[in-house]
Amino acid sequence: MAEPLDAGQQTCWRAYIESSWALQTRLEDELRARTGLSMADYHVLVVLSEAPGHRLRMGELAGFMVFSPSRVTYQITSMVKRGLVRKQSCPDDGRGQEAVLTDEGMAALVAAAPLHLATVRDSFIDDLDDAEIAVLARVFTRLGARLRPAIS
Amino acid sequence: MAEPLDAGQQTCWRAYIESSWALQTRLEDELRARTGLSMADYHVLVVLSEAPGHRLRMGELAGFMVFSPSRVTYQITSMVKRGLVRKQSCPDDGRGQEAVLTDEGMAALVAAAPLHLATVRDSFIDDLDDAEIAVLARVFTRLGARLRPAIS
Repeated sequence: MAEPLDAGQQTCWRAYIESSWALQTRLEDELRARTGLSMADYHVLVVLSEAPGHRLRMGELAGFMVFSPSRVTYQITSMVKRGLVRKQSCPDDGRGQEAVLTDEGMAALVAAAPLHLATVRDSFIDDLDDAEIAVLARVFTRLGARLRPAIS
Repeated sequence: MAEPLDAGQQTCWRAYIESSWALQTRLEDELRARTGLSMADYHVLVVLSEAPGHRLRMGELAGFMVFSPSRVTYQITSMVKRGLVRKQSCPDDGRGQEAVLTDEGMAALVAAAPLHLATVRDSFIDDLDDAEIAVLARVFTRLGARLRPAIS
């Protein structure tokens, strides 16, 4: 069985997980209220907007999102219904499916980004000094490399 | 309009939000697969287990969870159906409602905690040195104080 966290680790973990939960709830609530997008929608739009040709295979997208295949299928089906994404067969493999960002999806991202940025600055980034920025970048880049090995 | 993030801030934010998303997805998937609990369930169980008398008013619980009143009502209704929590009238105010941890809820928390701890250590805490632990504790304690002012 894993050893209990010591006092410093416990303080760090609780502050991190509870504050991150609160921050994500705020980001999600503000996005939904003002744009109708969820954080998962927003994340898919960002990932597709940065991909070559604005398209990714469903399996690649699942890797970026750290979603199971069934969860990414559910997410993309919902976004297809809203016109943000379309699905099409992979050009080099007739059996595979790609998710492709639509013009409406790009427009939704462009409209939502300034609002999202303002929340990110106001609730998180503007409070950090340069040294803290550097430590967080280092720690969370390592974390991402462990949790998402296929795409790091 | 908010100023765009500079390169260092952008690296920090993307690493933080994407890795935190991946970590929470892993924690949620492992908890659900092995205990049937969601992270929201787990969080409610932790918060109630630490409250005096294992009980909190619905509004206090919403504050801890950073949930809207309707979202906390939905969450608690689901947990009542599964026997993890019960609702009862506040002793000092017949109109208010409290959520109270049941014996089954405490047993579910005790059963899930070692699994959750192992994931927390393996995927996050064991990778951090003492200086990183201290910086994260400081940054996220400040973040929590801003996002959850009523309970900090």
